[in-house]
This record gives sequence, C-alpha cells and structure tokens, in this order.
Amino acid sequence: MDEIRRIRLFTDKKLILGGKAELSEKASHYLCNVMRCNAGEKIRCFNETDGEFLCRIEVSDKKKTIVRIEELLRLREKDNDIWLLFAPLKKDQTDFVIAKAVELGVSKIIPIITERTNSERVKVERFAAQAVEAAEQCGRLSVPEVVSPVKLIEFLGAWNPERLLFFADERRRGKEAADAFRQSAGNPAAILVGPEGGFSDEEAARLDKCLFVKNINLGPRILRAETAAVASLSVWQASAGDWRNYGERT
Amino acid sequence: MDEIRRIRLFTDKKLILGGKAELSEKASHYLCNVMRCNAGEKIRCFNETDGEFLCRIEVSDKKKTIVRIEELLRLREKDNDIWLLFAPLKKDQTDFVIAKAVELGVSKIIPIITERTNSERVKVERFAAQAVEAAEQCGRLSVPEVVSPVKLIEFLGAWNPERLLFFADERRRGKEAADAFRQSAGNPAAILVGPEGGFSDEEAARLDKCLFVKNINLGPRILRAETAAVASLSVWQASAGDWRNYGERT
Repeated sequence: MDEIRRIRLFTDKKLILGGKAELSEKASHYLCNVMRCNAGEKIRCFNETDGEFLCRIEVSDKKKTIVRIEELLRLREKDNDIWLLFAPLKKDQTDFVIAKAVELGVSKIIPIITERTNSERVKVERFAAQAVEAAEQCGRLSVPEVVSPVKLIEFLGAWNPERLLFFADERRRGKEAADAFRQSAGNPAAILVGPEGGFSDEEAARLDKCLFVKNINLGPRILRAETAAVASLSVWQASAGDWRNYGERT
Repeated sequence: MDEIRRIRLFTDKKLILGGKAELSEKASHYLCNVMRCNAGEKIRCFNETDGEFLCRIEVSDKKKTIVRIEELLRLREKDNDIWLLFAPLKKDQTDFVIAKAVELGVSKIIPIITERTNSERVKVERFAAQAVEAAEQCGRLSVPEVVSPVKLIEFLGAWNPERLLFFADERRRGKEAADAFRQSAGNPAAILVGPEGGFSDEEAARLDKCLFVKNINLGPRILRAETAAVASLSVWQASAGDWRNYGERT
C-alpha cells in the first residue's frame, strides 16, 4: 500500500473532499496498464487550485478511472512568479530544460522563436506533457503553463515592464546574477536563454533597448544553453525565490 | 580559418611559446579524421599549468600530430576549490552531471560508492574523457581530476576537516544554501549528492556525526540527484565562487 500511495497524478478536474473525480484516459492507462492498480487502492491526486488529496480508486479500467477524494494532504500554495523564455534546443536538451525548470519552480514556460531557432523543435504539446510528468515527480501542486511559441521581438513589444527579464548575455558582462536577483526579490521576473547560435544583431539591439531587460552574468566559463537555464533558475530561487526563508538561517 | 581556430584541445604535454608539442593519438584522430585538418592550419591547445596557445599544425596524420606553439592566448588561472562527490546515476544522467560540473567550474569529481549505488555505473575512464571534452568546449584551462571511486564512509574517515562538505539532505531542513555558501567563501568546499535511493541509515548517521558536514536546503520541491548537483554548484559559484566579482556590482 505504501508503494501505491506514492503514485501522484495531476488532474485538471475539480477536487472536493468527500466527492469523486474522473481522471483522464492517459491517467487510466497509466494506472491500469503500467501500475496495475485495482479498485480500492489509494493514490494521490492534485491540482493547483484545490491542493493534494489522498484518493481511493473506485472504478479502474483502461479508459476510465473514478476516484473518491478521501483526505486533504496539502492546501494550495502560493507559487513563484518566475517565467522561463527559451529557444528550443535539440530534443534531449529541451526535455531536460523543461523537466528541470519544473523542479526549479518556474510558473510559465515560453518557447521563443528567434531568427536562429530551429522551429521544427517546437512541440508544445509534448512540452506540456513533460511539464505535467515533472510536476508529478517533484511534488509540486502546480503545473507551469507551457504557452504556444512566440516570436521574441513581437513578445518584447507586448511585455509588461513591471516584470524584469533577466538575460545572461555572453557578449558582455552583466550584473552579478545573485545580486541582480536579490534586488528584485518579491517582484515578478523572467529569465531569457538564447538559442545555440546566439541572437541576431537585430534581436540583440532590440533587447538592449528594453529597459525591463537586465543583463546578468554567469561567470567566466561558456555555459551551454541548457546549463545557463538551470543555473540561472537555481540562483534565482536561492536569491529571490522560495528557497529563501525555507532553509534555516544563521 | 576562423572556423578552424575554434578547435580547442586539451593536452597533458608541456606547452612552451616557440616550442613544439606532440598531441595524443585521440587528438590526432579527431583533427585528421573528424575535422579534416591539414598541416599549416591553426588550432588552440591548452593545459592547466601553461595556459592556452594558438598553435600551427606541422605534422598531421591519423596517429600523430605535432604543433608549433606560436602565440600565448591566456595565462594559467587560479581555479575554484570546489569538489563534487556524487553517486553515479544512470548513464545519461551521469554524463550530464559530469559535463555540467565541468562547466560550473568544479576542481575535482569524486564518484562515491554507497550502499545503494549501482557500482556497475562507475566508469572512471569514460568520466575522465567526458571531463576533457566539456573543458574543451566551455573554455576552461583546467580539466577537473576524476578520481577512482571511493566508499563514502572510508572517504569521510580521511577527510581534511578544513574543507566543508555541503550536503543537500532531503530528510531535514538544512541552512539556506546561498547563506551557507557565502559564509564559507574563500575556503575549500565540496558538495555531496546522494544516490537515487538515498543514503542508508548507517551512512546518514555517519554524515550526521561529521562536524565538517553542513546540511543545506534546496527548497520545497523534490530535486532529482542530477538537478541537485547542478543547482547547488550554480548557487555555490554565485555565492562563493568565481561568478562573484566577475559580473558588475551595483
């Protein structure tokens, strides 16, 4: 039973204590064919608005699962307000960036199309499915939204300047990342990671002109795009996000 | 020619301005068969003690390459003193951890054998080759040493207590990572990442007893082992390593 209880599934259905919920066909397949669950067994179900619940499977077959919502495990929580904008990379690196971004608590994932992005790499539905899976594994209640790909320059035009956009620009020395993040703690933020070939001159010039874009610096070595994404999200969490005030302070 | 100059190879041979060096058979294969270089072309060669040089290929065949060392590009640099101790994971994750650890400036990589480590995963020669490749790509002059696997408990017994060992312990709340790292800035440090199944009770008890072990906290979500490694190294660099004083300060 302990093993079964570790199953943790996201659902977009409403979860009300004492009520029932029907899970998706995908979840039914997973529970029935992969995990060989039977009616009567317990699993955990969660979503962002209701929280996380211990649920008992009432009906379980390949296509349909109905659970009874028996016990509240966690109430909804306040999320970080940190977005990740990134130009999709090769498949493995993109998968990696998405999973790590979820573990590192991003609230929105925005695939960007740049002049040097290989747009065949943009598979939003797959990205979204991976975000769900990563959220199920890392214990998050929320699943970050993965939006449809946007063209960088158009997106910058519609940007709300109250959200700072931190950009690890390898062409020049920005501010120390930890310093820059700490100073903006409490405010909405976003991190921008460029494509493998860098931004075009036009894109770079546009970024330079935006007052809400803050160049940050990730040290003397050349980081690959996926490393820059994970490293800057980690430092943001430690400096301005929910890793602060979670650990003991000295 | 510009393209060729981007080739950057580590060598353990002495590099003296105006002298010559014979590169390894592996490098010769890469230059000759993969990159199709010819005599007369320029590449960059580096090592930790001499620095990085622009070199002209004098002899190039599948088995043998001799270069003339024509121009000093970078002098040797002071390295971070940060070790990574980790229990080898599945192949892809281990490859990932090693490449990222090199990009993130570790000075030594120590595969540890724990009670729950699958020791078939420990392939030190392959790890070392990957460290070289990552150093060539990220612009480092040094290649972190990859040592032979050690048993955690024995290794702790021979530990020099002047080096703090930071451990992201999921069983309990440690100190905020950025805080803990900042307070030890300037001192030798190491980061320990446990195996997928966690440490055994005996190992955990031993870690608890070591005064040089400092528990740190990486926030409310459950990080996979490879994420914990990359995240904690990133925060260390930003708080106590060479990312500090590299970017602009405000």
